Amino acid sequence: MQNDIVAALDIGGTKIAGALVDRQGRILVRAQRPTPAQEDGETVVRAVEAVVAELAASPHWGRARALGIGSAGPVDASKGTVSPVNVPGWRDFPLVERVAAASGGLPVELIGDGVAITAAEHWQGAAQGYDNALCMVVSTGVGGGLVLGGRLHPGPTGNAGHIGHISVALDGDPCPCGARGCVERIASGPNIARRALDGGWKPGADGDTSAAAVAAAARAGDPVARASFERAAQALAAGIAATATLVEIEIAVIGGGVAKAGDVLFAPLRRALRDYATLSFVQNLTVTPAMTGTDAGLVGAASAALGARDAAVAGVGG
Amino acid sequence: MQNDIVAALDIGGTKIAGALVDRQGRILVRAQRPTPAQEDGETVVRAVEAVVAELAASPHWGRARALGIGSAGPVDASKGTVSPVNVPGWRDFPLVERVAAASGGLPVELIGDGVAITAAEHWQGAAQGYDNALCMVVSTGVGGGLVLGGRLHPGPTGNAGHIGHISVALDGDPCPCGARGCVERIASGPNIARRALDGGWKPGADGDTSAAAVAAAARAGDPVARASFERAAQALAAGIAATATLVEIEIAVIGGGVAKAGDVLFAPLRRALRDYATLSFVQNLTVTPAMTGTDAGLVGAASAALGARDAAVAGVGG
Repeated sequence: MQNDIVAALDIGGTKIAGALVDRQGRILVRAQRPTPAQEDGETVVRAVEAVVAELAASPHWGRARALGIGSAGPVDASKGTVSPVNVPGWRDFPLVERVAAASGGLPVELIGDGVAITAAEHWQGAAQGYDNALCMVVSTGVGGGLVLGGRLHPGPTGNAGHIGHISVALDGDPCPCGARGCVERIASGPNIARRALDGGWKPGADGDTSAAAVAAAARAGDPVARASFERAAQALAAGIAATATLVEIEIAVIGGGVAKAGDVLFAPLRRALRDYATLSFVQNLTVTPAMTGTDAGLVGAASAALGARDAAVAGVGG
Repeated sequence: MQNDIVAALDIGGTKIAGALVDRQGRILVRAQRPTPAQEDGETVVRAVEAVVAELAASPHWGRARALGIGSAGPVDASKGTVSPVNVPGWRDFPLVERVAAASGGLPVELIGDGVAITAAEHWQGAAQGYDNALCMVVSTGVGGGLVLGGRLHPGPTGNAGHIGHISVALDGDPCPCGARGCVERIASGPNIARRALDGGWKPGADGDTSAAAVAAAARAGDPVARASFERAAQALAAGIAATATLVEIEIAVIGGGVAKAGDVLFAPLRRALRDYATLSFVQNLTVTPAMTGTDAGLVGAASAALGARDAAVAGVGG
């Protein structure tokens, strides 16, 4: 078993990345295609099949024992289907069945992309050694995943940890998901930028109105820019505190573009956490930046495949 | 093992209940003392010891293999200590050690009272057969617990599922816990009554200003009373939806005095849930009243003791 490897797919609205990954988490082979996100479902799956075919052409392929998929959500691991918001051609699309066929019958493990990133952080990143962790991505959207009792907690459909769409302001602004006051509606990059602009912040000569530009202004002391990050931090703190209060976590790991703002985000976040994480068993919660990078989705999908493989082998063996 | 039984303690601010419980969940023997909640810690633990001694005098005692404690929280199962808000004499009190000694050395399993009620509902009540469930008590306070992947999820310290103290209104009213806009601050019985009174609701000739009296008025069509229950329902819905979105649950079971309001609570709760549980994987969530009664704490503590006992036996045997 030490010589076994797994295949991994990271499927997003922009690209479809694939890799062969060994038990140490090293990427041996890579393949990638742009996601033809606006095309019909069959066209999109052909891009996935092309990535799998490229991996299968590697001399390492013969050692692959399972295949993990981390996909933009929502996914339904119980049915093996995906319905990514950014890929309209896929609605309840039977991705597991199609990938299993394309791979010549490997066992396929499907999880959401937030769960995949969590698996990567737990295996190789900031959540390593923690038995109970929340890992988040704060970027264009806000996603996440959970490690509970030392194991990934994908939930029955592979979507658990969707912290971006819990409401922390029940009378708050409508969110595209249909609810109000969701963490994402307050804390995502576009919402940080929007709130700064609404408050009167002016971008620089380059016209950059991204959250990164707001972060630069906040770092330079702009009070409106700072306030927008503070509000985002407050929403993240309420969401993280809610998660800790509900399931008991020891650490919250935050990655994604907005986390690159560094102290502009993390300083008010740690302050706000003291306001919302009040019960004795959540007061010692650590908040820290993510360590894994652009390969996190692939590494996490590989980790999930390895976990499922080991469980299956253990089940057969006794 | 089929003939084994367990001892159970349900420790609250009003009474300390004890029982011997068989594998079918039947209560064979009972013992009870009032909680001397305002006395010093040693006086309180003597009441616990008296309950254990009364159980130990039963001819069934020889078959007891473990002892479960469901205690008012916060508890710390990792340290074996309790600090119940309503029992000021106990702060980080080493309850597990004291009960183990009083029982002649039985293995002791400690969980919070919300977790205990969840264990009871999962074993014998409305959550039976569900692998992923949230069980709540909505009463003077709001508590809860989780079943995840078919098993009780107490968390490392035995406090998981504390839904009463997650914030669903980050700018909301201050909660005694130190945070703002907690579910309990909006949805507990006293807060339902307070909001109705603030809104101009007048109690009947008997002067009853309980949440039950507000429920009766709501049932009779009083718009202020109805609005107070609707607001509570909205906060509960946001909290339940957050839980489902974070960990994936199939059912939310609600017990406690406020749940006895029936449709006055459950009808607006089910409506509000459609507003907050919006993602595909949480849309089919069932909300239902609890089935277990006043013995839930004892039955749940017994269930936790049996679970720990079986895990220990399996660990030794295989």
